Amino acid sequence: MIKCDINRIEDKIKTFSTFGDDKNGGITRYALSKEDELARTYFKTRMESIGAEVVFDDYANMYAILKGSDSLHKKIVMASHCDSVLNGGNYDGILGVICAMEVLETIKKENIPHKHDVVAMIWTNEEGSLYPPAIMVSGMLCKKYLPENIASNYDEDKMFSSKDILTNKTTFKEALDKFKYKGEYKNRLNPHDYLAMFEAHIEQGPILETSGNDIGVVRCVLGMVNYSIIVEGQANHAGTTPMKYRKDALLTLSKILVELHNKIDELKIDDLVYTNGQICVKPNVHTVIPSYAEIMIDVRHIDHVVLKRVADIINSFDGLKLDGCLVKTKLNWSRDTTYFDPRLVNFVKSSADELGYKNQFINSGAGHDAQFASYMLPTTMIFAPSKNGRSHCDEEYTSLDHCHKLATTLLHAVLKTDKDF
Amino acid sequence: MIKCDINRIEDKIKTFSTFGDDKNGGITRYALSKEDELARTYFKTRMESIGAEVVFDDYANMYAILKGSDSLHKKIVMASHCDSVLNGGNYDGILGVICAMEVLETIKKENIPHKHDVVAMIWTNEEGSLYPPAIMVSGMLCKKYLPENIASNYDEDKMFSSKDILTNKTTFKEALDKFKYKGEYKNRLNPHDYLAMFEAHIEQGPILETSGNDIGVVRCVLGMVNYSIIVEGQANHAGTTPMKYRKDALLTLSKILVELHNKIDELKIDDLVYTNGQICVKPNVHTVIPSYAEIMIDVRHIDHVVLKRVADIINSFDGLKLDGCLVKTKLNWSRDTTYFDPRLVNFVKSSADELGYKNQFINSGAGHDAQFASYMLPTTMIFAPSKNGRSHCDEEYTSLDHCHKLATTLLHAVLKTDKDF
Repeated sequence: MIKCDINRIEDKIKTFSTFGDDKNGGITRYALSKEDELARTYFKTRMESIGAEVVFDDYANMYAILKGSDSLHKKIVMASHCDSVLNGGNYDGILGVICAMEVLETIKKENIPHKHDVVAMIWTNEEGSLYPPAIMVSGMLCKKYLPENIASNYDEDKMFSSKDILTNKTTFKEALDKFKYKGEYKNRLNPHDYLAMFEAHIEQGPILETSGNDIGVVRCVLGMVNYSIIVEGQANHAGTTPMKYRKDALLTLSKILVELHNKIDELKIDDLVYTNGQICVKPNVHTVIPSYAEIMIDVRHIDHVVLKRVADIINSFDGLKLDGCLVKTKLNWSRDTTYFDPRLVNFVKSSADELGYKNQFINSGAGHDAQFASYMLPTTMIFAPSKNGRSHCDEEYTSLDHCHKLATTLLHAVLKTDKDF
Repeated sequence: MIKCDINRIEDKIKTFSTFGDDKNGGITRYALSKEDELARTYFKTRMESIGAEVVFDDYANMYAILKGSDSLHKKIVMASHCDSVLNGGNYDGILGVICAMEVLETIKKENIPHKHDVVAMIWTNEEGSLYPPAIMVSGMLCKKYLPENIASNYDEDKMFSSKDILTNKTTFKEALDKFKYKGEYKNRLNPHDYLAMFEAHIEQGPILETSGNDIGVVRCVLGMVNYSIIVEGQANHAGTTPMKYRKDALLTLSKILVELHNKIDELKIDDLVYTNGQICVKPNVHTVIPSYAEIMIDVRHIDHVVLKRVADIINSFDGLKLDGCLVKTKLNWSRDTTYFDPRLVNFVKSSADELGYKNQFINSGAGHDAQFASYMLPTTMIFAPSKNGRSHCDEEYTSLDHCHKLATTLLHAVLKTDKDF
């Protein structure tokens, strides 16, 4: 069976890792930044050099289109993102772009016949690092296909006014309007012109590595809820306020956090993950008792009944008065478990099997643009192992061999789709 | 007995509150900012209008000197600061400056005879809001009189390179060099030219209000220690990392914080105050398990043995391994309890008594420039009540009547010093 070229893949990994190099093994490449522009330019140049046509839509999503033999057929797209978190790794997102480019380069080099146009695509602002939320652009683009409870999170006016978290000045829309690769509405991914979408990605967890498998055949993206837990206390001077008069928002939040973890852990639910990754304390000065403390909790599980049970625990703190402070909870967003297209999942599975790559079915705990695309057109994902399960950090790593197997599995899944979907 | 002018005091409070008005009842007036310059210019203009000579030293401390009848005598100085914290109040620091100005204006207006020069002084960067640490400039200016363990914190090279916390670019030295009121070394406060120093200030705590007293006769500034508690975990993706593989620095810190408070509270020590006001979490993103969490603890008490006992509890966490994380503790700074000059304390007490103002002895929990000055020359402080004990916030408030009593007590304590010290 035809395989992708491991040297070409290595070359692309190395080149992309220079765009936003954080000099510590990883990258910081925010969406719509100068570094993002450099990565896009490289993508465009390299794709045009094999004869692909490169177009961009009004969200600055980019599409490199390699013409198929029959222009009446719809396109098959392989999409991922090239933006990163602060001090992220060289694989999350960008490896999916590299695999898509590699599939096009292999098809071209090996002169593989295909009826459908095959497209490598870059989504804008998947991470939402500067302009929250994550998977913002696919949320807007796919909005009319999404369930109402999810769609309502992706109002374009609201997303466009998302402010740069570093300066709190520039909005997403302002950055987009200034970006070199903002294009036209008519180029957007849509179900009339596109047949199917694949997203190749790193697992970002330890499951494949632990089981010794090369390929994860993804069946779904787990449902999730995200809440804020807010504690309101009272600011006062650290040196002059007796302990008994204090309303310390951060201390109260710490107590709640410990109790919250105890209560959720008591449910003893397998495969449940939940995280308090982001905290905001005001005024956050060492000589002032905190008046305000807010923490986010991100909860993920395949079963919405489980999510509901955890949400009930979170909400049991709402309205609580503790140590002079008032506790509030607020739902930020939620999404249902998204199942991928069974035929495409099967193409991935049979490709990996035929290639002799050890593989397994797996669920995605992380959110991806593919989950929103899947409401619009048949979609699926393929995972490669992450060393030590690490991701969103400098140490994020997937071996070149695993990258090569990921690209090659993608190639054959796309070719099966071209032939039999 | 002669009293200060309540209308003049009100006028000064209102005018200073326009320099950095945060439109929410308070002010943000960072040291060496445009707003600081406006406040200094008003001070200079108003003091020159009563015939005072205004000079500045190389740290931009300002001195308004009203000549006494005998130029052979040393000067008596009343000093405080006009910088604030973010969204601070209209009394912390600036009220001491207003009282000092008011004393000069009263002496001039009432033609009160005095042998010594009487000086109203503004210290630069007391809060250390933009350029940490707090009471930086008095630390540098008084350095050679300080005990070695405190002096070592105020190395000029280190202080000068303190970076603006908002931009992380401009250093204190750069801001100082550009400031309109940077003057000459020879003008610095010093024990050869100065006889004694007073600092009038708001209490920033609830003790005077609770006891119904008008004036706090301050006897000391409490000793304190400041430590960082650091937890090192491992960053990983929130959606893909099973709970059992996690090394969550923020959750571990929360557990330690609750346990730390339990252990310190078990000591059951009266008048001990300790605060966790400032936290730093990395990467602080809702989809990433925190790899790093650091919190400061600020501990204050009159007895250094008590401070040692609390420090021992803090340090008992050093090196602890908990839930896959490593805990470290680090001493940031400490200071001894500073007792004020008993003769000056007595002048304040007898002035308040003779004026018929209800008063009590009190300790200062907050740090002030007066504590460092007290190592260099006889020094003391006078407190006015703070409404609800609030400070370092928009709601900070001291009634005009209490401001007037504070200024009048200061006036008579200075006159007693002029006569009898």
